[in-house]
Amino acid sequence: MRYLRFIDNGRPSLGLLQGDTIEVLDGGLFDAHRATGRRVPLAGAQLLPPVVPGTFYAAGVNYHRHLEAVSARKGVPFRLPDMNHIGYRANSALVGHDAPIVIPRDSCGRLQFEGELVVVIGKGGRHIAASDALSHVFGYTIGNDVSERQWQNADRTLWRAKNADTFKPMGPWIETDVDLDAMHTTVRLNGQEVSRFKTREMVFGIEDTIAEISRYITLSPGDMIWMGTDEPTLDMVATDQVEVEIDGIGVLTNRLVAE
Amino acid sequence: MRYLRFIDNGRPSLGLLQGDTIEVLDGGLFDAHRATGRRVPLAGAQLLPPVVPGTFYAAGVNYHRHLEAVSARKGVPFRLPDMNHIGYRANSALVGHDAPIVIPRDSCGRLQFEGELVVVIGKGGRHIAASDALSHVFGYTIGNDVSERQWQNADRTLWRAKNADTFKPMGPWIETDVDLDAMHTTVRLNGQEVSRFKTREMVFGIEDTIAEISRYITLSPGDMIWMGTDEPTLDMVATDQVEVEIDGIGVLTNRLVAE
Repeated sequence: MRYLRFIDNGRPSLGLLQGDTIEVLDGGLFDAHRATGRRVPLAGAQLLPPVVPGTFYAAGVNYHRHLEAVSARKGVPFRLPDMNHIGYRANSALVGHDAPIVIPRDSCGRLQFEGELVVVIGKGGRHIAASDALSHVFGYTIGNDVSERQWQNADRTLWRAKNADTFKPMGPWIETDVDLDAMHTTVRLNGQEVSRFKTREMVFGIEDTIAEISRYITLSPGDMIWMGTDEPTLDMVATDQVEVEIDGIGVLTNRLVAE
Repeated sequence: MRYLRFIDNGRPSLGLLQGDTIEVLDGGLFDAHRATGRRVPLAGAQLLPPVVPGTFYAAGVNYHRHLEAVSARKGVPFRLPDMNHIGYRANSALVGHDAPIVIPRDSCGRLQFEGELVVVIGKGGRHIAASDALSHVFGYTIGNDVSERQWQNADRTLWRAKNADTFKPMGPWIETDVDLDAMHTTVRLNGQEVSRFKTREMVFGIEDTIAEISRYITLSPGDMIWMGTDEPTLDMVATDQVEVEIDGIGVLTNRLVAE
């Protein structure tokens, strides 16, 4: 099933996608909700980030080629990390499918894409075993971890480099039924394929990451984990269109504009 | 005025403190809310974090002596940063006044306190001028940025070092009327004063920090900024009681327990 959030009569609403039609639901994704019986066409609907998490986790460098590239950029020898060092991103940066990515006025003018699988937690818990972790997942969506590399290299933290307004496009919807092993993540820039990798070839997998976070932190419904990206991540400039596709989920499309 | 959140008949409710009595309000802090006419005594009430933010900012190392200590620990020369490098903390770690701070089973068993002023945003905005910043503040509360230093030194990020469950006590309430220039922050461990500093002697002040964040990010009502702490920050172990007091706001008290 595909759940989405969209603007219905001027306010955020939950919907269930049936082909090209949104079945409008009453209630929240993790509260009781029911069909209103009303339907609106997907075409022309303004989509929102499909969930706004209580806590927004990001798994960071989590693919082999990306780890090698980061090591090379920093001039340090490549070695596998001992654990998945979790990061955080800011809800304030989230935008939906088709929303513009705004290039800040005083940035270098170039932003890089990072196409990522997003895991949405459905059932919370603490001390979740890796073997039980996937039963805590509600569904999957797509994220673009947009990054300003000059700030990323210069600043002590990632705050503006990865969390300026509009830097976290996510969507278009949450898909509850996927085949994790068959998925590829594909990134297209202005219609040209520029990156493609097997989605599940992560250094630390979904199960281990959920187990590791929940060793210290109680996960709650709606929390989400962005699972990292693989190389290459390339520059985007104003007017570029970026698409991140993950097989079985869909395509997240956004266009860059100057502030 | 002092606003708080507490458990009323089993569910989170908003209240306004009048002396030792909570006037129960209906609605949310930043939505329309009105007095219900009902009053309950503060004594015995289970207080919650007074706000749950959309985005939880932390100003990081923001006092001179703390900056010097961090430089010494890392073995790098002391120099003032060029800007306030903002960090994030996790809502999942928030607990209220009087809630236990739980020492994780596989930690080193010692946690350190960091007493901090918390700025709660009331009026959102982007590109807020420093001269106008204080008019965007709803009020102030107290935070204890509890930290596990072995993890902080070993890990690539601060995720478990500063965001394990219960590591972010906050409260007891939001005070809307304060005298920023007159405030001291005092930390007591088992009743003994162990740290005291002028709250406003920050490297980057409240006004500059709001201006800087909003240069890149839209602030929203309920967002909050923890403003950092000064030295010393000392070890706490199981059964210790830690109090953070800020003049004109109140006292945030928590006790440490082993998982």
